[in-house]
Amino acid sequence: MNSFGNIFRISIFGESHGECVGITIDGCPAGLSLSAEDLLPDLERRKGGIQKGTTPRKEDDYPIFKSGIFNGKTTGFPITILFENNNTRSEDYQKQRDIPRPGHADWVAHQKFGGNEDYRGGGHFSARLTTGLVAAGVIAKKLMPQINITATIIEVGGEPDIEKGLQKAIDAKDSVGGIIECTVTGVPAGIGEPYFNSLESALAHIMFSIPAVKGIEFGAGFKAAKMFGSEHNDAIENMQGQTKTNYAGGIVGGISNGNNLVFRIAVKPTSSTPKEQTSLNWNTEQMEKFSVKGRHDLCVALRAPVIVEAATALVLVDMMLIEQKIKRVIEI
Amino acid sequence: MNSFGNIFRISIFGESHGECVGITIDGCPAGLSLSAEDLLPDLERRKGGIQKGTTPRKEDDYPIFKSGIFNGKTTGFPITILFENNNTRSEDYQKQRDIPRPGHADWVAHQKFGGNEDYRGGGHFSARLTTGLVAAGVIAKKLMPQINITATIIEVGGEPDIEKGLQKAIDAKDSVGGIIECTVTGVPAGIGEPYFNSLESALAHIMFSIPAVKGIEFGAGFKAAKMFGSEHNDAIENMQGQTKTNYAGGIVGGISNGNNLVFRIAVKPTSSTPKEQTSLNWNTEQMEKFSVKGRHDLCVALRAPVIVEAATALVLVDMMLIEQKIKRVIEI
Amino acid sequence: MNSFGNIFRISIFGESHGECVGITIDGCPAGLSLSAEDLLPDLERRKGGIQKGTTPRKEDDYPIFKSGIFNGKTTGFPITILFENNNTRSEDYQKQRDIPRPGHADWVAHQKFGGNEDYRGGGHFSARLTTGLVAAGVIAKKLMPQINITATIIEVGGEPDIEKGLQKAIDAKDSVGGIIECTVTGVPAGIGEPYFNSLESALAHIMFSIPAVKGIEFGAGFKAAKMFGSEHNDAIENMQGQTKTNYAGGIVGGISNGNNLVFRIAVKPTSSTPKEQTSLNWNTEQMEKFSVKGRHDLCVALRAPVIVEAATALVLVDMMLIEQKIKRVIEI
Amino acid sequence: MNSFGNIFRISIFGESHGECVGITIDGCPAGLSLSAEDLLPDLERRKGGIQKGTTPRKEDDYPIFKSGIFNGKTTGFPITILFENNNTRSEDYQKQRDIPRPGHADWVAHQKFGGNEDYRGGGHFSARLTTGLVAAGVIAKKLMPQINITATIIEVGGEPDIEKGLQKAIDAKDSVGGIIECTVTGVPAGIGEPYFNSLESALAHIMFSIPAVKGIEFGAGFKAAKMFGSEHNDAIENMQGQTKTNYAGGIVGGISNGNNLVFRIAVKPTSSTPKEQTSLNWNTEQMEKFSVKGRHDLCVALRAPVIVEAATALVLVDMMLIEQKIKRVIEI
Repeated sequence: MNSFGNIFRISIFGESHGECVGITIDGCPAGLSLSAEDLLPDLERRKGGIQKGTTPRKEDDYPIFKSGIFNGKTTGFPITILFENNNTRSEDYQKQRDIPRPGHADWVAHQKFGGNEDYRGGGHFSARLTTGLVAAGVIAKKLMPQINITATIIEVGGEPDIEKGLQKAIDAKDSVGGIIECTVTGVPAGIGEPYFNSLESALAHIMFSIPAVKGIEFGAGFKAAKMFGSEHNDAIENMQGQTKTNYAGGIVGGISNGNNLVFRIAVKPTSSTPKEQTSLNWNTEQMEKFSVKGRHDLCVALRAPVIVEAATALVLVDMMLIEQKIKRVIEI
Repeated sequence: MNSFGNIFRISIFGESHGECVGITIDGCPAGLSLSAEDLLPDLERRKGGIQKGTTPRKEDDYPIFKSGIFNGKTTGFPITILFENNNTRSEDYQKQRDIPRPGHADWVAHQKFGGNEDYRGGGHFSARLTTGLVAAGVIAKKLMPQINITATIIEVGGEPDIEKGLQKAIDAKDSVGGIIECTVTGVPAGIGEPYFNSLESALAHIMFSIPAVKGIEFGAGFKAAKMFGSEHNDAIENMQGQTKTNYAGGIVGGISNGNNLVFRIAVKPTSSTPKEQTSLNWNTEQMEKFSVKGRHDLCVALRAPVIVEAATALVLVDMMLIEQKIKRVIEI
Repeated sequence: MNSFGNIFRISIFGESHGECVGITIDGCPAGLSLSAEDLLPDLERRKGGIQKGTTPRKEDDYPIFKSGIFNGKTTGFPITILFENNNTRSEDYQKQRDIPRPGHADWVAHQKFGGNEDYRGGGHFSARLTTGLVAAGVIAKKLMPQINITATIIEVGGEPDIEKGLQKAIDAKDSVGGIIECTVTGVPAGIGEPYFNSLESALAHIMFSIPAVKGIEFGAGFKAAKMFGSEHNDAIENMQGQTKTNYAGGIVGGISNGNNLVFRIAVKPTSSTPKEQTSLNWNTEQMEKFSVKGRHDLCVALRAPVIVEAATALVLVDMMLIEQKIKRVIEI
Repeated sequence: MNSFGNIFRISIFGESHGECVGITIDGCPAGLSLSAEDLLPDLERRKGGIQKGTTPRKEDDYPIFKSGIFNGKTTGFPITILFENNNTRSEDYQKQRDIPRPGHADWVAHQKFGGNEDYRGGGHFSARLTTGLVAAGVIAKKLMPQINITATIIEVGGEPDIEKGLQKAIDAKDSVGGIIECTVTGVPAGIGEPYFNSLESALAHIMFSIPAVKGIEFGAGFKAAKMFGSEHNDAIENMQGQTKTNYAGGIVGGISNGNNLVFRIAVKPTSSTPKEQTSLNWNTEQMEKFSVKGRHDLCVALRAPVIVEAATALVLVDMMLIEQKIKRVIEI
């Protein structure tokens, strides 16, 4: 079940320390100009490494198109994009094989897949799989030039001052979480449905597919639970459906109402922390102290905004196609 | 797109003031004993009316099985259940047709469906559609006797003292929101997958299909964003995968880890409030003052726990079938 | 898995001798005028009874709309239609319970569903379930006024002279099969895709969902296997893509080419025959002679053309919506 | 829509003269031993070249695993397999760009994709895409060791004597079609469902996804239409459900009955024939004589049996997983 979407449908594959990670995008309209260069800026944002608190894996992350592009344009057939894994040092992981890392999926993966899982660097669980998401997100964004999606980190380690939050992590030599806010302008009214295909359902679905996300709220979100109805209700002000306030985050009855989409997601601190931790050695059946070796971000939330934007674009492009607001053959 | 699930697949239909609301459940294993009586307790909980702040619609909510049951057992074929609508007074709605109610889907529905929508009592948007969800939830729960799902309201109008929160609403003659917490025991390790079929993705997907839900968080949720990794990581203590703490809410890497599932959802205040409000009259194109007539709950969150439980059960039963932890023909 | 279609998605339910049979149609565009009267002519054709060789069950087959219609038009939400079962005499079936009828699904259903299946009158296997298909087919046809679908019976019991074929069955007091040909005009070029969403794949898929269908061929079909390429290839004659011959049956590379769709299906003789037969009594484990009691058509193929038309329409309407050749809100 | 299957789900990508063709297999159980060598025999059969009438493209067709295999076993995550395209000479195709080849998808592809399609060697329409199907088929077969699938060509150019049929084609310097029969032993009773998930529906669906297939029939198939019911009905002879005859081809009510599955498919003659043909030049809008250059099989049906087997295996493995007759973690 590594696919998402109805018409514009993505499928991810690959492992952190295998040959590559990649994505196939099925259902992309024909005629979209597309080159590797289009993808590089967002891929670079995902890679991180400029800000404090991120120590990027040394990878080119250069997208290799294997299908679906001809003469610089999409053909309407599946687009497969690979990203080679070069910077893989798996020995570190081998050593700690018997101690499931707290907060990681090591133990459950072992249970579920009967010991057949590729445990190196998190295998298929690795956030490296989001490389494909970001690539697909760029394509989705290009199909909706009128829509603008911006995700920014608004809190790190509990501090709205990002620098301060990062310093806290550096000082503590520990990983920290963060909160990301995403705002989308230009979404026409009428995208989404009540119930199972609500815009919130689809957005939440894909957001919780991003590793480390543990919460999402739309508009006033959890604060809405503390409000009176007369406060929370957004009054419509004009025939375009513009509302005075936007406590609903641009979605009523599961459907976009033409105002800005606004939602926030909570990113937990990376499980991988330089701190010494205690866990069960499943071989000796004893608790052991150990620390996770290797390269690690202190704050993965810093690299998440571009993934959140991509995921948002993937939901919107699929619904826009269903609503026939994007053509099957385009000229962009 | 009024369906949810892969193997155990539900489809809802109906309108608030049409003939009926209903649900079809496809993929239910054969051999499950099932009668209308099994469904009544949870249907009664959904109806509410005992607690302050709920004024139930006067309906029997008696489930009428139309297919899929033979000799008191499920046959393995689609189970269709109808709930007749008797208490429908649509005249009230007709009068206010030209003023889209703030916070409701009136305006977007009109845009999206070109004026063909059944606007009476919210039509297909109505929370009355959750009757079917609750019925399906009972069936799902019966298929998983070892799993216990309990949702409770933990905050109303910002007050953890529920009575106090309700009184606040009654005093203010205004609707209020609330927060619901759901705890699930007995879920085996290994349910869910990383990425698009993560347990969090599936649960969030269906929770945002419940009207008025605007936020969800798993385990520590938004608080996780303020924690250090060494704090948040749940250390595994024994060979059953039990963890000392449960900040992850029982899910790591998208997969259940055998500990309790814990999540909370934010329910906004009902848009329908007795308070006078202002909105645009789309006929006169002028702002108008008006108030919503008719029966309304002051706090819909009070009736939501049983819906949250049902929705949780629907996600779990589907994943349990995929993981072959429930047989296709059973003897219960 | 009782659903079919991607955007225009149908779900069937019900049993031959249960309360009703029915269908839910999800994804139908809003704004289509629709009444029970629209459905009656095709429902009447399905019921049969005028031609020799059909002895219709005495049912009104009057469609009861339970949802999705408001003010005589589709709302864009699920349309549920019920057909009550009145003419049910189940005692006959009870008697023969221990002898699985040759050619029927009695034995496999018993194996698969562990004895929980509703065996009365074929239960969910009954061709009575096609009532819903025919109803949905009318809706699909109304959405595509430019397309004309005509299925006719071209052979009965091996005789192209239908009357002669039927007389053969009557004389032999035995059931007979038949061949149905379906021709569709007005399908635009470009419907379908190569591989898994080929127009042939989708049409064949639904045709084999009709009880008693055992073969399908497109255009020249099995005869194509005996032809040379230079004979079989249809030469394009003008800029509209019209071809001189139509050996391809209007489909190349899985996609409609703008010429008429032409396909034929083989319908086997009904398993229920008045003739005495031999089968195993699974109680006594002995072979026994017996004959099937009750009302039976001698040639079910006679009633199949309207079902074939409906099934064709269901495939086309779904693909036309995907290709954006039908709007989401219409004025018909 | 380049995917097929519910649990065991395949997605194909690539073009005849692009970088590669490939497939991703999602939902494969963990623990299956798998190496490139396992795939080679069937890939070799697909390539052909030994028998008269096939002139294989000079490709290694060596499967390159990009994901989903670890320590020689499947991990339970997506398996992506690539086949590089080396033997691509696209100049030939460029020259004939303006003349849509009769019987090919050239004209409809141009219409549907607005001229963006990769027309070189048939692009995504090419039968080269079946390389991935064959690879996936081997994996499916390995998961069902108790099932034996054998497809053989039983007629070429109308001749049951295959050599004679091929000689006919060679003598005529023209392509010919053929008929393939597939027999499957070891399928347990209970696979499939009535209606949309019938075994016939699923098999027919995927068979018509194989290029050049224009007909399919199960058991007696089209001959069944000429039979009496008392002749066609297969009498059950023992408690294992074995039948005396097998006119149903092992499927009743859409469900396998434990007897051999038997079906035949009609393969049309390849559109590409050395013969001179006439078609419209869409540039000059004039009819023109031309002949298709390059390497072509005279009888593609010769290479189809292994594809038919693979497609059969893909249907069965998916249904066997749904019916829980294959475990999610295995030891093979």
